[in-house]
Amino acid sequence: MTATMTDYATYKHFNVSMPSAHVAHVEINRPAKLNAFHQECVQMWLEYGQLFRALSVDASVRAIVLSGAGDRAFCSGLDITSAPELTSSTSSSSNSSGGGGGGGGGMDPARRAFALRRHIREFQDCIGAAAACEKPVIAVLHGIAYGLAIDIACCADVRLCAADTRFCVKEVDIGIAADIGTLTRLPKVVGCGSWVREVALTARVWGSEEAVSVGFVSRALPGKEQAVAEALKTARLMAEKSPLGVQGTKALVNYSVDHTTQEGLDYTAVWNAAAIQAPDPAIAIQATMQKKKATFAKL
Amino acid sequence: MTATMTDYATYKHFNVSMPSAHVAHVEINRPAKLNAFHQECVQMWLEYGQLFRALSVDASVRAIVLSGAGDRAFCSGLDITSAPELTSSTSSSSNSSGGGGGGGGGMDPARRAFALRRHIREFQDCIGAAAACEKPVIAVLHGIAYGLAIDIACCADVRLCAADTRFCVKEVDIGIAADIGTLTRLPKVVGCGSWVREVALTARVWGSEEAVSVGFVSRALPGKEQAVAEALKTARLMAEKSPLGVQGTKALVNYSVDHTTQEGLDYTAVWNAAAIQAPDPAIAIQATMQKKKATFAKL
Amino acid sequence: MTATMTDYATYKHFNVSMPSAHVAHVEINRPAKLNAFHQECVQMWLEYGQLFRALSVDASVRAIVLSGAGDRAFCSGLDITSAPELTSSTSSSSNSSGGGGGGGGGMDPARRAFALRRHIREFQDCIGAAAACEKPVIAVLHGIAYGLAIDIACCADVRLCAADTRFCVKEVDIGIAADIGTLTRLPKVVGCGSWVREVALTARVWGSEEAVSVGFVSRALPGKEQAVAEALKTARLMAEKSPLGVQGTKALVNYSVDHTTQEGLDYTAVWNAAAIQAPDPAIAIQATMQKKKATFAKL
Amino acid sequence: MTATMTDYATYKHFNVSMPSAHVAHVEINRPAKLNAFHQECVQMWLEYGQLFRALSVDASVRAIVLSGAGDRAFCSGLDITSAPELTSSTSSSSNSSGGGGGGGGGMDPARRAFALRRHIREFQDCIGAAAACEKPVIAVLHGIAYGLAIDIACCADVRLCAADTRFCVKEVDIGIAADIGTLTRLPKVVGCGSWVREVALTARVWGSEEAVSVGFVSRALPGKEQAVAEALKTARLMAEKSPLGVQGTKALVNYSVDHTTQEGLDYTAVWNAAAIQAPDPAIAIQATMQKKKATFAKL
Amino acid sequence: MTATMTDYATYKHFNVSMPSAHVAHVEINRPAKLNAFHQECVQMWLEYGQLFRALSVDASVRAIVLSGAGDRAFCSGLDITSAPELTSSTSSSSNSSGGGGGGGGGMDPARRAFALRRHIREFQDCIGAAAACEKPVIAVLHGIAYGLAIDIACCADVRLCAADTRFCVKEVDIGIAADIGTLTRLPKVVGCGSWVREVALTARVWGSEEAVSVGFVSRALPGKEQAVAEALKTARLMAEKSPLGVQGTKALVNYSVDHTTQEGLDYTAVWNAAAIQAPDPAIAIQATMQKKKATFAKL
Amino acid sequence: MTATMTDYATYKHFNVSMPSAHVAHVEINRPAKLNAFHQECVQMWLEYGQLFRALSVDASVRAIVLSGAGDRAFCSGLDITSAPELTSSTSSSSNSSGGGGGGGGGMDPARRAFALRRHIREFQDCIGAAAACEKPVIAVLHGIAYGLAIDIACCADVRLCAADTRFCVKEVDIGIAADIGTLTRLPKVVGCGSWVREVALTARVWGSEEAVSVGFVSRALPGKEQAVAEALKTARLMAEKSPLGVQGTKALVNYSVDHTTQEGLDYTAVWNAAAIQAPDPAIAIQATMQKKKATFAKL
Repeated sequence: MTATMTDYATYKHFNVSMPSAHVAHVEINRPAKLNAFHQECVQMWLEYGQLFRALSVDASVRAIVLSGAGDRAFCSGLDITSAPELTSSTSSSSNSSGGGGGGGGGMDPARRAFALRRHIREFQDCIGAAAACEKPVIAVLHGIAYGLAIDIACCADVRLCAADTRFCVKEVDIGIAADIGTLTRLPKVVGCGSWVREVALTARVWGSEEAVSVGFVSRALPGKEQAVAEALKTARLMAEKSPLGVQGTKALVNYSVDHTTQEGLDYTAVWNAAAIQAPDPAIAIQATMQKKKATFAKL
Repeated sequence: MTATMTDYATYKHFNVSMPSAHVAHVEINRPAKLNAFHQECVQMWLEYGQLFRALSVDASVRAIVLSGAGDRAFCSGLDITSAPELTSSTSSSSNSSGGGGGGGGGMDPARRAFALRRHIREFQDCIGAAAACEKPVIAVLHGIAYGLAIDIACCADVRLCAADTRFCVKEVDIGIAADIGTLTRLPKVVGCGSWVREVALTARVWGSEEAVSVGFVSRALPGKEQAVAEALKTARLMAEKSPLGVQGTKALVNYSVDHTTQEGLDYTAVWNAAAIQAPDPAIAIQATMQKKKATFAKL
Repeated sequence: MTATMTDYATYKHFNVSMPSAHVAHVEINRPAKLNAFHQECVQMWLEYGQLFRALSVDASVRAIVLSGAGDRAFCSGLDITSAPELTSSTSSSSNSSGGGGGGGGGMDPARRAFALRRHIREFQDCIGAAAACEKPVIAVLHGIAYGLAIDIACCADVRLCAADTRFCVKEVDIGIAADIGTLTRLPKVVGCGSWVREVALTARVWGSEEAVSVGFVSRALPGKEQAVAEALKTARLMAEKSPLGVQGTKALVNYSVDHTTQEGLDYTAVWNAAAIQAPDPAIAIQATMQKKKATFAKL
Repeated sequence: MTATMTDYATYKHFNVSMPSAHVAHVEINRPAKLNAFHQECVQMWLEYGQLFRALSVDASVRAIVLSGAGDRAFCSGLDITSAPELTSSTSSSSNSSGGGGGGGGGMDPARRAFALRRHIREFQDCIGAAAACEKPVIAVLHGIAYGLAIDIACCADVRLCAADTRFCVKEVDIGIAADIGTLTRLPKVVGCGSWVREVALTARVWGSEEAVSVGFVSRALPGKEQAVAEALKTARLMAEKSPLGVQGTKALVNYSVDHTTQEGLDYTAVWNAAAIQAPDPAIAIQATMQKKKATFAKL
Repeated sequence: MTATMTDYATYKHFNVSMPSAHVAHVEINRPAKLNAFHQECVQMWLEYGQLFRALSVDASVRAIVLSGAGDRAFCSGLDITSAPELTSSTSSSSNSSGGGGGGGGGMDPARRAFALRRHIREFQDCIGAAAACEKPVIAVLHGIAYGLAIDIACCADVRLCAADTRFCVKEVDIGIAADIGTLTRLPKVVGCGSWVREVALTARVWGSEEAVSVGFVSRALPGKEQAVAEALKTARLMAEKSPLGVQGTKALVNYSVDHTTQEGLDYTAVWNAAAIQAPDPAIAIQATMQKKKATFAKL
Repeated sequence: MTATMTDYATYKHFNVSMPSAHVAHVEINRPAKLNAFHQECVQMWLEYGQLFRALSVDASVRAIVLSGAGDRAFCSGLDITSAPELTSSTSSSSNSSGGGGGGGGGMDPARRAFALRRHIREFQDCIGAAAACEKPVIAVLHGIAYGLAIDIACCADVRLCAADTRFCVKEVDIGIAADIGTLTRLPKVVGCGSWVREVALTARVWGSEEAVSVGFVSRALPGKEQAVAEALKTARLMAEKSPLGVQGTKALVNYSVDHTTQEGLDYTAVWNAAAIQAPDPAIAIQATMQKKKATFAKL
């Protein structure tokens, strides 16, 4: 199950590097198209899901930074102009999320809905792989971050951005409700309900200051370079700690967000009843006392 | 089911106008009493519920602005001084939410509780009609916004305010816990838990800056006039988009707030499997390319 | 069931005083150890739970302020250096959460997990007693507020802090996921999801300005003294109101945070159907009209 | 809000009588069509919903028996042959639940789905009015009980049947999944999961013995007459008791079916905290001791 | 925390014996009053809760049989005739669940409701202690099993009965809805929804054959003696197995009943990840191969 | 995505045939080992999951029958004797669910728990593939049906059995709580709570009559041959109907089991809003009128 760096080299749309110990850096790598998920997009988002599922079980990885290649965009969304079926017809076209999956042909609306539902669920599962990934994910946004970019960013644990970032829940502008996760996750990661609905209902672009102010990102840095550096620093900080502590923390926060307080506490107790039977706390404490760096076994 | 502007003229306590295409403007219209819901309040809130249920299914309406008539108040709450039974007696009076529903008479506490529960549920359903309304609702608060005003505002999708607004969860000051929605919805629309409990437990008045800072409103404008203008502009923006996209967005955010992430994603997929089989995306994209305004069929 | 001030004097690790009518002030009282919950910590947190359960049903108490004795710390967490079993191992030691790791003696990992689960649940229940307490609790943080301090603070209704406070979700630094409530409650009391995960995954220290900015505390005051004074003032404000209104408000907000909107409204209606059959609203209104202070019967 | 028997005479498709004190008897009254809900079915099921909402708040009614007029059928479902649009076309027809709501016309599939969803929800709400009715409902099935008959029966509290009853979840036979409540409620009222899915997936007809055996009905009586008599006897038994006890019991069972054990217990405590403050228990106990019939105030 | 048999001798209303290794037998011991929970009932049910909480953590106990002393009754419910305040007054009496907690006096209905709610919750917690008990509980019912007896029985894991048992959800006969657990748990332990509502709404007595037929009990035995013997045999069977397997099974079934399938599976995986790290499976398999009895360490 | 019969021939441990149009028959094919999932079991259950995921999206399949090859067993569980690590050691062995996943080696209990949790979740997902499969699954049990057999059977929609079947929730006999689905699903598919807990806590074997009586299976047939024939007949019945109706029914029952009544109704409405826009209802009705067999397009 463990991937090697060699394996990661096979991904076509993503650069994967290991800038420091236990830290993986994933770059969406289609800068000429503003990192849009393109025409043969099925392959691109399938690859995205596959990548994060591999990182999730790769014992050599303890924290992940996700950013976009190039200067102009984290991700400009779906590459709609390359989805010809969207514009060819008004009465029978299948306008799927992501442009694929439907086909239309002679299918009646019920069968097309059946196919579209499967398609959307699969697309959601791929993009959601970063949220399900057992290792923390830090997203760094810059330039254009529209549509699918927000779906992707909402799945990260921590979001940083460059000062020039322009964010947009773009979907209502093409006549649909965002369906790859934004409408579900954005209200859970930003506490300002009025703002969430406003940007989702208007497709208004917002900038980095506003993103900080409402808490969508933790911090804005002057440029992409600084933001990536900051993310890598934060990732290193996480990667130096016991992976049991860090991955347990992600798992328990994920669980708690979707359950009642009592359920969260109960699950936490069952989880930690095993997790604290590790040598890691003793190792951590000893290292602190000796002012040394602790070394933890892989997980 | 489709109402006409003529029908809306029959509402006694609310002005309904159509300032631009597909945008309805509802004014709470009892300015002499600071837009309090008054003595014969049963009628007033029944009318409020009826109005938003009508707007919800009126195909000519795509976005709604809600404000209060006059300069002094969005709404000062319930008109308690006009609820004589509240003050007439200390030992046996029925102090219902909204002043009605109870009656008391010779009823034992159990039967009175039964009647009061029905009454509160009905009152909640009427005020909640704006949240259940399929079209987005933008509330504009100004001047006094006390008690019931907060229940009402929490049901809107987007909240704007004038700089002079004074907000208050007033209920504890009259010895009761707010029961028309504030205590349920405020913690879901504002992420600052400490602040939510503080204002609910103390009935402290807060102003527009604080409202912006905690995210209760999206923006504060200098005066009521500007705030209403801003709301109407935002409503027009929503109304120009495909109603399938906008109304789907509201429905899916509403759903997600009350469900787990996985449930939200699943519901979204089923919803969009039908919703994206519309000509609207093609129309929207074509209009964008041609830099024209898109026209969408009614919904 | 009603405790007297005399009873409260028997608590070994906590000072309990009654600075004004119906307001209790609880101080964590182990300043020499930075108010850490210490070696014989079982006793200390059992006492903490017992204290808040007593306050919960003490009719003479209507609001509670919680702070830490001394200048240096609200609470520095668990007193780990005094937990020798962590690095040596004994046969019968209680391996607390936050105590971490090994020991175990002859127990197999399954039986040890069983015992640890019980232990964590009991610890959670004690610390959670402030959240379950029927009276509102205002926590005042100052100086060091690490680890368990955050678990404790998250259980308060309102949080204030002194400008010098240094906050930290410390647990990942000793190789474990926080299990006494922070990971469950922090995402529910602070709406900035990115920030919550960042501080929980990095154990980064944050200060009072950041605490205000993300909404973890309602306000920061210049020093501990001013913060306690502000908390006592707020507590008095709550204590002067009808206890039915105040305690109902806490109960309903607690309920709503963990339920859907519709469930929250329904529960509220059943609750208030009884609660508004009190003389308190009439008393409150009359007092307001007569510009007198209202007196409410105990609850 | 209180209806009188005169009002009930205005219902076109239902007979409503008052065979004994506080007991209402509702008959589906379209025997010539096997009590199918027919072509102008919108009106028929709207009337059904309206009727049970009226009974719910009619203080003179404490228990309700629901049966079908004539010898041949409780209800044979929807009168599909009278829904011409269903058979006229294969490519564009709108086959709505209940035959209405759709219209089709030139609507695209997304808009049609929007209309159909509203339609189904409204139909569900009407049929579900018996479940939401505050008074217990006893359904008596006989003869044909197909399709909608099962949706209706699942909403009753108690089900009895005549020995000749033929039951069928008919919907898959016309190519759709049952959508007015059967698929949601049947698994909650019958504990035999394998049987539930078998009858729902095959549209197999089952008889009264099987209905008793799996627990779908409480008892089978030799004929319709005896079954109605038994139902009326049971209804009288309920109607003679305190309406607070009976209606509280229905409300709390309804609640518990849809919530966790702890939520059910908590809600029950809040409910009964008011409900047991009635004179009814004392009246009931005194009557029992004096071997007299108790008389309870209306509710 | 571990109780000894000597400690169990101190319970006033319950006999506790240890008829075979690791099997505790609890008898409700007030046969002269048909094992009703009597006037000073607060003490009796507090003792009941205390007893099951002690058994839950007593490592020498692995299975529990619960029955009623004497020939005539498992338990006839609450001893209402000994609750004088119930009959003394019609307008102001407090009829609490269990006869206590209210008091009434000069309390207004809201404060009385507050006290009653606390009282009901505490009563529920005591009776629910058998459900929360980590060890399996087998209830043996005989003779009269009315009212509270059903609340108690629903908390057991397994129910057996003697042929002469007469069961009754008695509460509606005294004008109240059962509030100590029956209405919440009965629909979860018996799959025949129609039957559950019928017996709860009519207070109809049912017998052992019906109890078997609907699945309320697993089996009926000819007499009490045989039923207790069968229960003890079943308890021995459970007690001979690994306590990790048995107690894990109870914990996971309890959890699953109140959660979705996916939540149940997830919790199970976290639970067993620790629980299967015991020597017990190897011991069990080896014992089976060697046709010996396995011995498992205490839990 | 569509598999062909050729593809199905590649499965090593399962026979897949197509005995009639649209009906797949899956046989667990390891009869010499009583169809136990064996030593290299990881591969066997991975294959099982893969098979049902393929069937789920194979448009040529509309109903599935699952049975065991040979005369002696449906499935005797996990082949534990072939899991040497289980018996080799008592202090440090990893006893995983399914015998794999753990490894143990030098892993500390926390890391082992982490690995085991992943392993159990993956095993659950594979066995649960039949429940998640969009097509209905009919399980036919015969001979021995122990341990994993019950996990597998609980995932089927319909269960039939031969008269000779011996069922057993075997896990407590080897010292563990069943973790592949039985404890979660059995209480949801059998309404007799007392029986469910009894068989899970005692590992008592039960027979076909009891299986019918509690509703675990729909019917018992004299022998395996008849049971398979009956299952195939039932599968054909399902396969002849519109796949939209049948698969929608399975999806909606699955959903409703895990949600509240209101959530179930709401989801149903959204689902059917698209699903009933098919030509299938018209085709079905026309065929019925013409007494012909209907032909439905693939799904």
